[in-house]
Amino acid sequence: MLELTTGETLPFDYLTVATGATPRLPSVPGQDLEGIFFLRNVADAIRIKSFIKQRNARGAVIIGAGLISLEVCEAFRRLGLETTVVYRKDLPMRRLGQDFAEQILIELESNGAKFMASTLLEGFEPTSSGTIMVHTSNGTLESDLVLIGIGVVPEVSLASEAGIEVGPTGAIAVNENMLTNYPFIYAAGDCCECFHRVSRKPVHAPLGDIANKQGRIAGANIGGQKILFPGIVGSLCFKVFNLEVASTGLTLEEAEKAGFKASSATIQGVSKAHSYPGSLELQIRLVADTETGRFLGAQSVGGDGVVSRINALAVALTGGLSIEELAYVDLAYAPPFSGTWDPIHIAAQKLLK
Amino acid sequence: MLELTTGETLPFDYLTVATGATPRLPSVPGQDLEGIFFLRNVADAIRIKSFIKQRNARGAVIIGAGLISLEVCEAFRRLGLETTVVYRKDLPMRRLGQDFAEQILIELESNGAKFMASTLLEGFEPTSSGTIMVHTSNGTLESDLVLIGIGVVPEVSLASEAGIEVGPTGAIAVNENMLTNYPFIYAAGDCCECFHRVSRKPVHAPLGDIANKQGRIAGANIGGQKILFPGIVGSLCFKVFNLEVASTGLTLEEAEKAGFKASSATIQGVSKAHSYPGSLELQIRLVADTETGRFLGAQSVGGDGVVSRINALAVALTGGLSIEELAYVDLAYAPPFSGTWDPIHIAAQKLLK
Repeated sequence: MLELTTGETLPFDYLTVATGATPRLPSVPGQDLEGIFFLRNVADAIRIKSFIKQRNARGAVIIGAGLISLEVCEAFRRLGLETTVVYRKDLPMRRLGQDFAEQILIELESNGAKFMASTLLEGFEPTSSGTIMVHTSNGTLESDLVLIGIGVVPEVSLASEAGIEVGPTGAIAVNENMLTNYPFIYAAGDCCECFHRVSRKPVHAPLGDIANKQGRIAGANIGGQKILFPGIVGSLCFKVFNLEVASTGLTLEEAEKAGFKASSATIQGVSKAHSYPGSLELQIRLVADTETGRFLGAQSVGGDGVVSRINALAVALTGGLSIEELAYVDLAYAPPFSGTWDPIHIAAQKLLK
Repeated sequence: MLELTTGETLPFDYLTVATGATPRLPSVPGQDLEGIFFLRNVADAIRIKSFIKQRNARGAVIIGAGLISLEVCEAFRRLGLETTVVYRKDLPMRRLGQDFAEQILIELESNGAKFMASTLLEGFEPTSSGTIMVHTSNGTLESDLVLIGIGVVPEVSLASEAGIEVGPTGAIAVNENMLTNYPFIYAAGDCCECFHRVSRKPVHAPLGDIANKQGRIAGANIGGQKILFPGIVGSLCFKVFNLEVASTGLTLEEAEKAGFKASSATIQGVSKAHSYPGSLELQIRLVADTETGRFLGAQSVGGDGVVSRINALAVALTGGLSIEELAYVDLAYAPPFSGTWDPIHIAAQKLLK
């Protein structure tokens, strides 16, 4: 029986908890000021856009340098806003490694965005002219608006109160059928965990495509089809200005943390054949289990063809391929799409040495 | 001991046969006329281009409608030549199925090329003005030059004379080390067979990327590294005008011929999220083993993102994935690169029904 705040009660045979996630708050003074935004949905985007128009905004500060923050940074620059990204780490998307993170920084800066590295947010203050003072460990910025993109937290309060088990990640624990610890309560989407097929651990991966899959699996199971969610391999991608960024599986650091004896190889390749017009540089890093030769993950940045390679490698993780298999895997070759040796082959061969 | 035509002899410990393939000849009268070309290498391309310039050629006929023929068709049209493709089958690239072949035909015709379907070549005749009469079962064409692209045959005469075993495909039979029936004679490239991992049969797949891999494997083995060539899954791709065409594994027809009880599903998808600018239509067909649910092959045509999907699916064949696994495989999602459900997911889910 579900109780609503209206006093109504709803009986159910099966319940699906799909409470999603909420933006992580920075817990600093002034975070509720007008002009400070989060971006979770289309309504947020419309709100931000109309604020920019109404205020004739000239400048924006973005707190955080993950996927959403960097995508918003591009959008702000396209609207002509002076944009400063404030981040606690030394480089944006630090998880991808210093070399790749540096490329992202170059892409931000060459498109006119400013990046304040290793900078902690201390608080916000309004000014009489309607702007916002952004206090940081590296001084104060004045801005027309602020976007906070420091991640999300799973919304589990309702579930917790109902005695639904929350996993080690803070999200709702579910099995392969998307079932919680109650045999008639399912959970799906950003509020729940998923199983990472490479680290073999539950993770919280609040991404739209995963939420879609989980919702369909939960629905199918409620409808009587016993479909299993096979878990994820940790694929993600985004575009920032003219740079494609993508990764799947584990980084070297994550592989070591997950208990693997791991090694990696990084190469510089091109998206099409060298001789073909429009071929752009891309860099790709493969990570492998040194003991078994099993492929564990890949990261890539570049002008073109990055997501294409990462998706092939995501399938390789799903199939449990070894680096040796990747070194000679039969990809489709034609000059408009790759060289005779694809960057995947070249990186795998380097890692084999 | 190798005997050269010069009378010299070369002693060897190991020999690699890399005699390649030669263009298939149509065996019709007049095929040696000046102005009739094959395209196997860069020298051929240069020869064709300078012939076009010197003769101030206006029109070309292409015999055949496979990869090379269609790529040349695009090149000829870009040079402004009136181009007619003569093909014995009803549609170009017929192997990909009527629907996809029709799309390729539309692409040819909307770029000004003419296609003569179900037409047999009967012979060539010179004219006094230096042009060529191309006689076909559907009448005679007059043309400045002719390109014959009806495939290649493995060059195995030297090998045959030396007692090297030729396989059922007519190409040199090799094992996983690229070794022939002689324990000290290797073969690599377009002259030899390779093992098709899906049909589990030897095939002749004369493609540049495969030749490269075989060469490296042969060399490594001669050098003492016992690397195995794991075989191919039958991936190929090409671009014709603005259409990407790619396939991997078996078509439905090939799967049935290989003894599988197979079924297929075809969907129309888009290369990026619907809402994203520049998203183009693509169609993809997945083929599965009806009895085991194993994924057997895919074909795709479209404006963008075709090769990217086929490469992910080539890896899926390598890993032996099932259609069920493909229906929920964790691909990297962001609107510039796909919808939350990728065409791969949508096709796999359709095939599951």
